[in-house]
Amino acid sequence: MAAAAAGVRAFGAKGPGWLRRSPWAPLVAGFCSRGTAGAGQPEPGPRPTSVRQQDGIRNIVLSNPKKRNALSLAMLKSLQSDILHEAESQDLKVIVISAEGPVFSSGHDLRELTDEQSPDYHAEVFRTCSEGQTGKAADSRLHGKVMMLIQNHPVPIIAMVNGLATAAGCQLVASCDIAVASDKSSFATPGVNLGLFCSTPGVALGRAVPRKVASEMLFTGEPISAQEALLHGLLSKVVPEGQLEEETMKIAKKIASSSRHVVSLGKAAFNKQLRQDLRTAYHLTSQTMVDNLALPDGQEGIKAFIQKRKPIWAQ
Amino acid sequence: MAAAAAGVRAFGAKGPGWLRRSPWAPLVAGFCSRGTAGAGQPEPGPRPTSVRQQDGIRNIVLSNPKKRNALSLAMLKSLQSDILHEAESQDLKVIVISAEGPVFSSGHDLRELTDEQSPDYHAEVFRTCSEGQTGKAADSRLHGKVMMLIQNHPVPIIAMVNGLATAAGCQLVASCDIAVASDKSSFATPGVNLGLFCSTPGVALGRAVPRKVASEMLFTGEPISAQEALLHGLLSKVVPEGQLEEETMKIAKKIASSSRHVVSLGKAAFNKQLRQDLRTAYHLTSQTMVDNLALPDGQEGIKAFIQKRKPIWAQ
Amino acid sequence: MAAAAAGVRAFGAKGPGWLRRSPWAPLVAGFCSRGTAGAGQPEPGPRPTSVRQQDGIRNIVLSNPKKRNALSLAMLKSLQSDILHEAESQDLKVIVISAEGPVFSSGHDLRELTDEQSPDYHAEVFRTCSEGQTGKAADSRLHGKVMMLIQNHPVPIIAMVNGLATAAGCQLVASCDIAVASDKSSFATPGVNLGLFCSTPGVALGRAVPRKVASEMLFTGEPISAQEALLHGLLSKVVPEGQLEEETMKIAKKIASSSRHVVSLGKAAFNKQLRQDLRTAYHLTSQTMVDNLALPDGQEGIKAFIQKRKPIWAQ
Repeated sequence: MAAAAAGVRAFGAKGPGWLRRSPWAPLVAGFCSRGTAGAGQPEPGPRPTSVRQQDGIRNIVLSNPKKRNALSLAMLKSLQSDILHEAESQDLKVIVISAEGPVFSSGHDLRELTDEQSPDYHAEVFRTCSEGQTGKAADSRLHGKVMMLIQNHPVPIIAMVNGLATAAGCQLVASCDIAVASDKSSFATPGVNLGLFCSTPGVALGRAVPRKVASEMLFTGEPISAQEALLHGLLSKVVPEGQLEEETMKIAKKIASSSRHVVSLGKAAFNKQLRQDLRTAYHLTSQTMVDNLALPDGQEGIKAFIQKRKPIWAQ
Repeated sequence: MAAAAAGVRAFGAKGPGWLRRSPWAPLVAGFCSRGTAGAGQPEPGPRPTSVRQQDGIRNIVLSNPKKRNALSLAMLKSLQSDILHEAESQDLKVIVISAEGPVFSSGHDLRELTDEQSPDYHAEVFRTCSEGQTGKAADSRLHGKVMMLIQNHPVPIIAMVNGLATAAGCQLVASCDIAVASDKSSFATPGVNLGLFCSTPGVALGRAVPRKVASEMLFTGEPISAQEALLHGLLSKVVPEGQLEEETMKIAKKIASSSRHVVSLGKAAFNKQLRQDLRTAYHLTSQTMVDNLALPDGQEGIKAFIQKRKPIWAQ
Repeated sequence: MAAAAAGVRAFGAKGPGWLRRSPWAPLVAGFCSRGTAGAGQPEPGPRPTSVRQQDGIRNIVLSNPKKRNALSLAMLKSLQSDILHEAESQDLKVIVISAEGPVFSSGHDLRELTDEQSPDYHAEVFRTCSEGQTGKAADSRLHGKVMMLIQNHPVPIIAMVNGLATAAGCQLVASCDIAVASDKSSFATPGVNLGLFCSTPGVALGRAVPRKVASEMLFTGEPISAQEALLHGLLSKVVPEGQLEEETMKIAKKIASSSRHVVSLGKAAFNKQLRQDLRTAYHLTSQTMVDNLALPDGQEGIKAFIQKRKPIWAQ
């Protein structure tokens, strides 16, 4: 793919050309054309995320540090668009989400949640953030809104955190497959202090850390440090700030060196079986193993290992 | 509420006046009138718990240190009564459960579990301790017996532990929303050594710590330290003994400073969604967020934040 | 049991005498007679496991260090046979699984997974490793293949790890009830590097450690240290290499000193209730407690405690 080889690409700036090739074009177009988004009413202005892709690694950056990278409806739709863009492309192997400025993300934009907006508008904000679509669109494997989308996406998604992640910002970290943070990062769900309990963030948080840790965070709003977040399962790794990008890219490059087909098959099976009872989970994954072996890349990998050579992936 | 303003109140001493106002009066009355409890047969004597409430914080103290605060049927019913008392009152914001003496609680009273008591009596002990009621009473939101009651209660319940918590005593800690312990505390499920496997404590323990940690505790009966309990998710926080009350009350006061209505809505949604698949969980909690925003306290909190002032909660 | 009193016994060498007494004789016989195993086609040679039993403790040792204790079909069937052998015998109280050499187990034998073998053969390998049987055999409580068998077995099973455990070898550790490792041990699921995602190991790993930790291991294939494995719940205990056997046997002896009947009842209830909602779990285990008290060993234990003497277990 020439565009990928170019190393840097602003999806938002590319116009309708690539949008028409995308199965979710209407949604992305709806956002990108602005003003037509109906209830979404994103404010005009520069795209709140930036994105570049190189060697199979897509970097999505939350780029509205003045607003503490708040997950406004515009930010959520931009993030969703960047995650979904050519998700099935063989050139995409892994996604890294990071942020500009000292705040990774402060969560929802409170100005969108006052009673100046209707309950319907509030509902759209939370649905776009967390919830899966229903109806026809749900037939697609990529059916989710941002948070669910991360788990349903065909490639691993890594959060690279350098600073404060609160409320839906903390939920975003908890929702990623892997999360690497600098040791100066911290995490909180402080909604209760504003009279808005972090109920949707609690879904991802409650599945990442022990119930007692999540409860204290949710009921008091007090932050935990990166080390505590690591201890309790919210993070995969904590590193000094100066090594954050290097360590994260090391993980991303390792994933990008594997067969996309194999990783995608494995990610889908892993997340699906986690919700199943043990017997069903083993039944599903035993079949996944057999299917995996039947892939060209499955046989290539094993043969390369036995022949003591580097595998050459078809995908 | 005048009584709350008085700072200290012994519920058990207040007589039938407030009992009649309570939906669970028959149960409490059954206990308080003693001698009439039927199969319960609580021994006569002082109430095995003491309780006081101030500024929205209810402190319940297990007060039978001579019997290592064993969870006898009398103790369980007293604890249940203190937790349930005016649970829906707007003056109650958070509950702290602690204990007198060096043993937080040693679990069930073994003398109630010999074959001098009938299997029906044994069953009542375990049901009162752990299990939810069935039938009509289950219609109430506050349907549980002690352990389930803690999760179903409208306000957060904190365990403040300074010493040994074993068997159902360990289960009590595991069942609370938040648990703070002094560094000299320890935790065990030693029933197996007495030929009575800690099966009901295993329910709460197995949901608080990794399966391997729970299995070793249950199969060997050996204790773990407070630090190990923190590491594995059984505790929210470990502090030096001298700071235990201060640190616990800091958490309790923080919770008491929030809107009770918002905390209650959030606690119910959090515990409910934990058992659901991701899609259902997000569907439920997205609606909770919308409902939360529609509360007077939801709008008050956000407006206060935007206006840079302290919120004034309706509840 | 005279054989147990003898202290050391090679099951595989004992011939058909004890096999006929065993409900799973056909399976074991099928393995032991070799050459008749059909699709299994185990290579001729010495049994890949060795086993001895003393004082209620069965030690099963993976004994093919030259092949890094790979879980070939022959190894899996030998391990299964050793675990299942006289599982209901009152002389068996606990099982310890360890390995010869610097590699605990390297997982599946890749030479069995090339396309020189049929998909049916591949399927048999994975089924024997992980999956529960279906049909008539599933009626038996001991219905599982190796990994599920460990949880369904009537006595606790301990992994004693001194070295590297990868892929299905890591799954074996994750599947045991208790796992003790030396500080030089490490754990990985590197299948993705060979084009064969560790989907079945992910079932056990994803239930032992937080999702973020499991995801990083599965997507990168990178190992974690024993200390990290302990931190995240994959291990019960980490000790210096020189103390590994002593510490593991201390746990095994403690379990062997309890009533087998009580431990067995407790293990079955614990693993069953973990998958249930809280109400159902408490309903099940409250009944388990009553049933436990009705056992002779249940009453003996409590009476011995009250009489301050050592209990004498019937089982």
